[in-house]
Amino acid sequence: MKIYDRPGFPNPARIRIVLAEKNLDAKIEFVSIDLIGAEHKQTAFLAKNPSGVLPVLELDDGTFISESTAITEYLDNLDGNPTLTGRTPREKAMIHMMQRRAEAEMLDAVGNYFHNATPGLGPVLQVYKNPEWIDRNAWGNQQRDKALAGAKYFDEVLKTRPYLAGDEFSMADITLFAGLMFADAAGIAIPDEYKALSAWRSKVSELPSVKNRSGQMFAPEDLKRLGF
Amino acid sequence: MKIYDRPGFPNPARIRIVLAEKNLDAKIEFVSIDLIGAEHKQTAFLAKNPSGVLPVLELDDGTFISESTAITEYLDNLDGNPTLTGRTPREKAMIHMMQRRAEAEMLDAVGNYFHNATPGLGPVLQVYKNPEWIDRNAWGNQQRDKALAGAKYFDEVLKTRPYLAGDEFSMADITLFAGLMFADAAGIAIPDEYKALSAWRSKVSELPSVKNRSGQMFAPEDLKRLGF
Ligand SMILES: N[C@@H](CCC(=O)N[C@@H](CS)C(=O)NCC(=O)O)C(=O)O
Ligand SMILES: N[C@@H](CCC(=O)N[C@@H](CS)C(=O)NCC(=O)O)C(=O)O
Repeated sequence: MKIYDRPGFPNPARIRIVLAEKNLDAKIEFVSIDLIGAEHKQTAFLAKNPSGVLPVLELDDGTFISESTAITEYLDNLDGNPTLTGRTPREKAMIHMMQRRAEAEMLDAVGNYFHNATPGLGPVLQVYKNPEWIDRNAWGNQQRDKALAGAKYFDEVLKTRPYLAGDEFSMADITLFAGLMFADAAGIAIPDEYKALSAWRSKVSELPSVKNRSGQMFAPEDLKRLGF
Repeated sequence: MKIYDRPGFPNPARIRIVLAEKNLDAKIEFVSIDLIGAEHKQTAFLAKNPSGVLPVLELDDGTFISESTAITEYLDNLDGNPTLTGRTPREKAMIHMMQRRAEAEMLDAVGNYFHNATPGLGPVLQVYKNPEWIDRNAWGNQQRDKALAGAKYFDEVLKTRPYLAGDEFSMADITLFAGLMFADAAGIAIPDEYKALSAWRSKVSELPSVKNRSGQMFAPEDLKRLGF
């Protein structure tokens, strides 16, 4: 299997945590895509993922899987013991619900802020964005506020249970964790008063799959190159 | 179990198809929410789903599940035979990938067109939308174009296989089907030249779960009330 990704970016990081959780690191080849040079918007990459975003998983038979949830479903179910996407109907439901919220209210909101109210990934990529119908700065700031409202909501949830979807670490936690790393990189400060969120984040950052993994997840060099 | 929904609307329709596919119609109580009167933006409903959208599933223990994918995962896995969300890792991956694309490139794009470039659900609900940062008409029209590009992409996919994610009807088809019904209602004409898409749509519309189901899925009265 191959993963087309880029260390230092949040959606690729989600899959790197999944690979480590499932002990699949050694079975995968990483292919680095130059996001800053807009390699993901060129024909060769669009044939792999018409949505033009990372990460993409290539199976041994040449099938391409994109969307981090779909890639996670695949990798998590390979060993017949889906610890990250749920074993019972109820677990699956809670995980998919909270995952989707973590995406909409944090990870994607931060991304919208980053690409619109900051220089984002720089001038080469800007051409592929659709700015004409929007006050990009105002929209970006509204998305930042959405992420901050998301932080408040997730803090409330984490007052009631150890992980986002229940008693166990899951795909939902991975999405939120990646979203918060992205918020740091994009300069969105999550208020200290969200104690449950902050305690959960410390706990997750100490998990072996997050802490001691092969390959860099959030590469400081790339972030610096972007001017963070 | 209870479903908070509204016949005539596309995301609720997704779950009504799932219920029919899984023979769960008789086990569920339907509670109708007044979307046009913005009942889903009031405190009572937001306690069930903080995102303020339909549908929401209430389990017998009082747990609320929102997001149509999460509700589908729950209902589809209850009998241990997940025909709509996939049995193998590969099926699950393909279904989740294509489902997400059907959401982004059709259903949600049509929704954005509908709420921004048409009168949408009317004046009561407009207050809850965020229009100040956007040229709503231009954005709506760009989202219509996105849906039309989506139709072209799905037509290409459906030239290569009978259903969106492979050989079997799945959650991905349900999302796309609901998206196309919404496109009709919103006045977006899908070009006739997309023959594979149109043949797939006829085939899906004849499935028992889509055709002969209890309760109205896309209620003509409600659509008329909205001025379609
Ligand atoms: N929904 C996608 C999102 C992927 C995504 O947005 N990836 C980012 C990298 S973190 C990307 O490729 N951005 C490039 C761009 O926006 O042009 C997923 O779940 O994988
Ligand atoms: N991502 C949600 C979307 C749900 C959604 O947008 N539902 C529509 C009805 S079709 C709604 O409640 N709209 C109300 C509004 O936009 O205010 C899901 O998968 O269920």
